[in-house]
Amino acid sequence: MGDFRWNEFYHDLELEKARRYFFPILLLLLQILFIILFGVHSEYNLRPRYPNGSIIIQSFDEPPERGDVDTFYPMFQDVHVMMFIGFGFLMTFLRRYSFSAVCFNFLIAAFVLEWAIIIRGYVFDWNLSRHVFGVDVQSLIHADFVCAAVLISFGAVLGKTNPAQLIVLALFEVVIQVWNEWIGSTLFCAYDAGESVYVHIFGAYFGLAVAFVLHKADVLESAKEGSSYASDIFSMVGTLFLFCFWPSFNAGTAYGDGRLRAVTNTYISICSSVLCTFILSAFLGKGKKEIIHIQNATLAGGVAVGCVADKNIGLFGAMIIGSLAGTISTVGYKHLLERLKKLHIHDTCGVHNLHGMPGVLSGFAGIVVASMPQRSLYKEGLSEQCFGGGLNRSVRIQAAYQAAAVFLTLGLAIVGGLLTGLFLRLPIFNTPDQDTYFDDSLNWIVPDDFVDAETSAIGKLAKQLKMNMPQLNEEDMPPAEIDDGMHLTIDVPNQQGKIRISLPFMQANEINEINELSRRPSANRHPSSIRSPHSGAHTALSLPPQLSSSTIHKLSPHMTHVARF
Amino acid sequence: MGDFRWNEFYHDLELEKARRYFFPILLLLLQILFIILFGVHSEYNLRPRYPNGSIIIQSFDEPPERGDVDTFYPMFQDVHVMMFIGFGFLMTFLRRYSFSAVCFNFLIAAFVLEWAIIIRGYVFDWNLSRHVFGVDVQSLIHADFVCAAVLISFGAVLGKTNPAQLIVLALFEVVIQVWNEWIGSTLFCAYDAGESVYVHIFGAYFGLAVAFVLHKADVLESAKEGSSYASDIFSMVGTLFLFCFWPSFNAGTAYGDGRLRAVTNTYISICSSVLCTFILSAFLGKGKKEIIHIQNATLAGGVAVGCVADKNIGLFGAMIIGSLAGTISTVGYKHLLERLKKLHIHDTCGVHNLHGMPGVLSGFAGIVVASMPQRSLYKEGLSEQCFGGGLNRSVRIQAAYQAAAVFLTLGLAIVGGLLTGLFLRLPIFNTPDQDTYFDDSLNWIVPDDFVDAETSAIGKLAKQLKMNMPQLNEEDMPPAEIDDGMHLTIDVPNQQGKIRISLPFMQANEINEINELSRRPSANRHPSSIRSPHSGAHTALSLPPQLSSSTIHKLSPHMTHVARF
Amino acid sequence: MGDFRWNEFYHDLELEKARRYFFPILLLLLQILFIILFGVHSEYNLRPRYPNGSIIIQSFDEPPERGDVDTFYPMFQDVHVMMFIGFGFLMTFLRRYSFSAVCFNFLIAAFVLEWAIIIRGYVFDWNLSRHVFGVDVQSLIHADFVCAAVLISFGAVLGKTNPAQLIVLALFEVVIQVWNEWIGSTLFCAYDAGESVYVHIFGAYFGLAVAFVLHKADVLESAKEGSSYASDIFSMVGTLFLFCFWPSFNAGTAYGDGRLRAVTNTYISICSSVLCTFILSAFLGKGKKEIIHIQNATLAGGVAVGCVADKNIGLFGAMIIGSLAGTISTVGYKHLLERLKKLHIHDTCGVHNLHGMPGVLSGFAGIVVASMPQRSLYKEGLSEQCFGGGLNRSVRIQAAYQAAAVFLTLGLAIVGGLLTGLFLRLPIFNTPDQDTYFDDSLNWIVPDDFVDAETSAIGKLAKQLKMNMPQLNEEDMPPAEIDDGMHLTIDVPNQQGKIRISLPFMQANEINEINELSRRPSANRHPSSIRSPHSGAHTALSLPPQLSSSTIHKLSPHMTHVARF
Repeated sequence: MGDFRWNEFYHDLELEKARRYFFPILLLLLQILFIILFGVHSEYNLRPRYPNGSIIIQSFDEPPERGDVDTFYPMFQDVHVMMFIGFGFLMTFLRRYSFSAVCFNFLIAAFVLEWAIIIRGYVFDWNLSRHVFGVDVQSLIHADFVCAAVLISFGAVLGKTNPAQLIVLALFEVVIQVWNEWIGSTLFCAYDAGESVYVHIFGAYFGLAVAFVLHKADVLESAKEGSSYASDIFSMVGTLFLFCFWPSFNAGTAYGDGRLRAVTNTYISICSSVLCTFILSAFLGKGKKEIIHIQNATLAGGVAVGCVADKNIGLFGAMIIGSLAGTISTVGYKHLLERLKKLHIHDTCGVHNLHGMPGVLSGFAGIVVASMPQRSLYKEGLSEQCFGGGLNRSVRIQAAYQAAAVFLTLGLAIVGGLLTGLFLRLPIFNTPDQDTYFDDSLNWIVPDDFVDAETSAIGKLAKQLKMNMPQLNEEDMPPAEIDDGMHLTIDVPNQQGKIRISLPFMQANEINEINELSRRPSANRHPSSIRSPHSGAHTALSLPPQLSSSTIHKLSPHMTHVARF
Repeated sequence: MGDFRWNEFYHDLELEKARRYFFPILLLLLQILFIILFGVHSEYNLRPRYPNGSIIIQSFDEPPERGDVDTFYPMFQDVHVMMFIGFGFLMTFLRRYSFSAVCFNFLIAAFVLEWAIIIRGYVFDWNLSRHVFGVDVQSLIHADFVCAAVLISFGAVLGKTNPAQLIVLALFEVVIQVWNEWIGSTLFCAYDAGESVYVHIFGAYFGLAVAFVLHKADVLESAKEGSSYASDIFSMVGTLFLFCFWPSFNAGTAYGDGRLRAVTNTYISICSSVLCTFILSAFLGKGKKEIIHIQNATLAGGVAVGCVADKNIGLFGAMIIGSLAGTISTVGYKHLLERLKKLHIHDTCGVHNLHGMPGVLSGFAGIVVASMPQRSLYKEGLSEQCFGGGLNRSVRIQAAYQAAAVFLTLGLAIVGGLLTGLFLRLPIFNTPDQDTYFDDSLNWIVPDDFVDAETSAIGKLAKQLKMNMPQLNEEDMPPAEIDDGMHLTIDVPNQQGKIRISLPFMQANEINEINELSRRPSANRHPSSIRSPHSGAHTALSLPPQLSSSTIHKLSPHMTHVARF
Repeated sequence: MGDFRWNEFYHDLELEKARRYFFPILLLLLQILFIILFGVHSEYNLRPRYPNGSIIIQSFDEPPERGDVDTFYPMFQDVHVMMFIGFGFLMTFLRRYSFSAVCFNFLIAAFVLEWAIIIRGYVFDWNLSRHVFGVDVQSLIHADFVCAAVLISFGAVLGKTNPAQLIVLALFEVVIQVWNEWIGSTLFCAYDAGESVYVHIFGAYFGLAVAFVLHKADVLESAKEGSSYASDIFSMVGTLFLFCFWPSFNAGTAYGDGRLRAVTNTYISICSSVLCTFILSAFLGKGKKEIIHIQNATLAGGVAVGCVADKNIGLFGAMIIGSLAGTISTVGYKHLLERLKKLHIHDTCGVHNLHGMPGVLSGFAGIVVASMPQRSLYKEGLSEQCFGGGLNRSVRIQAAYQAAAVFLTLGLAIVGGLLTGLFLRLPIFNTPDQDTYFDDSLNWIVPDDFVDAETSAIGKLAKQLKMNMPQLNEEDMPPAEIDDGMHLTIDVPNQQGKIRISLPFMQANEINEINELSRRPSANRHPSSIRSPHSGAHTALSLPPQLSSSTIHKLSPHMTHVARF
């Protein structure tokens, strides 16, 4: 007992390095594959040519021609900004994982855009006679929608996965998402203008299923899962761009009157969810609001109105939906997030609250509206291909297929997520562990102010410990002391004498972090204590007898020097 | 004397908590009211239907039909970003109030968008026969304009109001702003393409009037009103989006040739104000520029050209206006801001310099241009309803009504602001005081790095002081000393002995902050001193004998431990 | 020897102050000149008028009329955001130069927009009969393109120039860039939809030539050229907006099918460069990625596809180009940046890697595509005026002129840059030196947290040194010591005794900075040392015997007090 297992530690280190090359090699092979597929099967979806002199009257009520740039481009760009700036910055809220949040979001989004154009090309736009799929601005905006689903799933596993896992997650999720949407929209003919079902429900529950399978208990003990003042403000950049451009997301593929309704419904619904988020956050916080609610739950109105955004639900209906969404989302962030952790679902960004529940609400709204044909105008979206009667489908059948689309989506998302998660547990992937959860230094060469703050002393300490402390028994652990109100000093005995570890400038929250460490389920713990020099009261500090690498990592921010004596 | 009045302190604390529930309840009631009003009176403003096969030729010179999405949507989105990202981040410059700045901006904007659609619906778009108002993209962009007025007013009272006050301010201001604009544009027929009069003048002077009524002397003593390096850069995010999208603001409702002129005039005018801001800032700073000028005065050209943005003023005229605006705005930030404080007008964001004076300049430009009919083309904007001759109005009458609109706006803004301010002083509202001005911790659950920096020691200290120092006399106050060049130590005597308060790492600016404290009008002060250990020179530090809660709050950032001996 | 030359120091200080007024005076004179030129020669480029009732059929394949707002406005706004937010924030990565980066970017961009409209008006749009040039949205978007060239050059000299130099650089560069583009596009008729040749190649090599001429060896010794965690995240704001809006840059002036191709080619090319940047960064970093690659090289695909963006290169071709660009750009950042420094080319932002090499790649792609007439469709861009056969130009001639345009651009950029650089070395300009490179405090009144961190102690120390140390000999220099593991103490002898300089909280990277100082070529150095109190190992610290102002500046962040004894 008490063995540090340094050999294993270094062995793992070597393995981890080897595994890291897995990511660039995998990505390189996929990029080569994508280039080949684009080369063989893609073409520009140019506007159809008409004989010279012919005047084409485009009716306001008809869908714009494929190949048209101007009609869709401004909304496409808004949605594009939502993916890269919106989602990217929304996820920077973790104070030590901002590089990874914004950059992996960038990577995944760019990867998915390529992959989604290909898969949607094969599934939706395949030209049977010419063996190609066309690409135009509508393809690009749809690829961005697929991308949203994957980024939502990314939110659920943020900080607990490595880039290779994220690439494979995206690879699988895109295929399942596209097939699910194809069945739902082409066979079930379930409308979903803002993709609340096919994107938000799918992305959220796929991500939660992956998070469930990848769950390891030590994630709950990580001291790095928290925000800083600056990282919370960066996150607001994401929130506000998502807020502003959400009408473009929900109206992105609409036209005619539906486009006006999609814009105005989304606008008023998301404003309602902003107000209800502030109301609930202030209520639940007894006056004090939490910025995590404002960063996230404010947007729930955009999700929840999505499925019926272009329908004649009235601004009244949109406000009701948005208000409900803001309310349940805020309550979810306040109360559900912690409870899900007990079910082994650690949802880093709370996608269940922002995308999952509001998405289900939206699916439900879709069913309700389907039963009101003068509001749903569902016949406009039907084709001969639709199950349940083709163009002559009844109101009830439409409502049933709206429900079927929701359940199919939930099912495929959860099953797909579970299987993907199992695949991501293969030994070839190197999941982060407690030391490296929510920590950029695992993946990035970080600036000095990041290194110095947290890791400069750890190397020295680990070296010292390795030389001096092959074995450390519980009874040898001395109590920790605050010697002068500004340092916490622990004398760790070893074979050659003792090592004194001095942790200066301990602050209340840091002591709590260390104590949280001690509350983890661990066989042997040695209760030591921090004595406040002025109050005489004891604050329990329990350090496990083996200073595991994760403990050292946690302590390292506070260490400035290590003295041997 | 010297009594800490802890009972009162705790009584106030209870009251404050009770008052905080006022905000969510008020907001909830208003949101319910808004939902009802939308439900009863709103409808989508869909494009008119024409018989099948009819070809409608839309002339380039005519205003686009209501219900049209594509013509207005891109500019609407730009304006939307200006409200939420532009104004929101512009106001994050306060280093300890960034959460509140960006989030309350978010709240107010979302609230005003709902309320403004309703009020403008009743006042501008009411369908007398069908008892509804229609909503389309033009409604949304106009709601954003109303929103700008309220956010400008918010800038004047930033950091000195609580959310409940802000909601009531917005509730009142929207009604007055909409009526003022209706009178000015429909009866006076005073043109104002970029809303410089109806939005910028109105918002600025309304806000300044509220700030005047709410003024308390202790705001001038707050040590928290300052920026940090990061908060100033966040603020530039706001500045640059406002800059980029200002042409969309001024051209947002224009069409035909007026739209081209509005875009190009605004573009060149705001560029000119950027250059003149740099010129003036470098002149006035003797080479060194101030970033507050760049954050704000650079935008004055957008405000100042607004009233005549779509007129034939020539790029020459636009440049003159922009240059003047940048100049007076920069001079205002340098010299006027402090002088207004002596008149009991504390203008946190300097809205008088960015919106007030440039707005008046714009109104004046409107009068001048009105006298040149070939430039103002004022007849295009006339209707039978216009005062002073209807469609046959003369040039002089037009100029007179341009002036009348400015004075009406100034009058209604100031009177409305004064009355609103008086209402906001009702005891039901809990205005922040010196302790909590410009401080997020009043309203937010803040991250650890914010709490620890400023408030972690205060709780302990307050407890100690309460137990040990029921009374503290002036003569008992010992001098403060810098004991080792790195700590300021004050021994505070009490009944059981003394309490030593040690303030480490005192920096020049912090000493100044504490000294500023001592300059406040207070009956009993005890002059102590900081002795520089190396120079021997005394830097006066005067601590009042009663360590009031505000003093403790101010000192708290510097306290790390409190020793009793 | 050892003389501090305080007289000279103060003389220089006076001169520098005088020189600073040069900037506002120069800018004022130029703004007045611009107002006059706009007043005399500009007019709105309004849409042509047709007789009432005439129906104009605008063919999809024809270029839109001048004066049209709606076709170009959304893409213009995207490009506008790229200039101000994109470039502005991309350059904030320097931890102590963020104000200057974003604000000088703002200044230069606004200045160039005015100047470029004028110069392009004279060169491209001059109406010979009416002696005016017209301004419309197309003029504005072209001015933004010119602006991009100057901002790229700014990236090469970032942190090493003052505002007066930047204004003169912009003044010269715009003229040369516009003439070069006129020759290339009007006479050579070399296509370049995304301005990769005329803007990216030109801007990069112009900037590198200026950097070469302005090079001073001491820039390599500056300790301030580095990023912080927050400044790197701010930089990502710029990266992501540049990424999102690059399709608008490359398609900004295209129409018809070319517009669709420009959008989709750019979209897929820039996604490919994102993936290849991640691949290469992970490979080269042995698993760990560098955020500087993600900030920059990800965008190389947008540059490299530019020249042929609207051509029928297929998505396959676009992906190949983007992949190559991301690869060479990342390798450039990793390996070329340091090598160029040895050739006296210090390229702060690495514009050679992001704009230079990918631009040349794009020019090469343009030559290759020109040889495939069914892909280049080059005849669409020909006119009677074209060299080499006018409208009947052969494929080979087109390829030759594509190459000629690249070489002309390279030549004019380098010669123009060298001459501009020589002009900028005139004594009237006050180039920063080692003390003030990459430091905002040279140009800005900075917030307290910036001042205190680095400069608060320097004033006191300089004063002390001046009084006490007129001469300081090498042999008098004592070794520096870390006395308690937390302070570095140096006792500097002088005529009245000694001065003890105490540098607390020395961190590993700071010791390295100080040691880097000592490695600079200097006649007399005194090797002292820092002794680690716990390891006994010596870390060499070499302080030069004369504490030059630059050394003092470098040490100043660490000094808290100076004791005389």
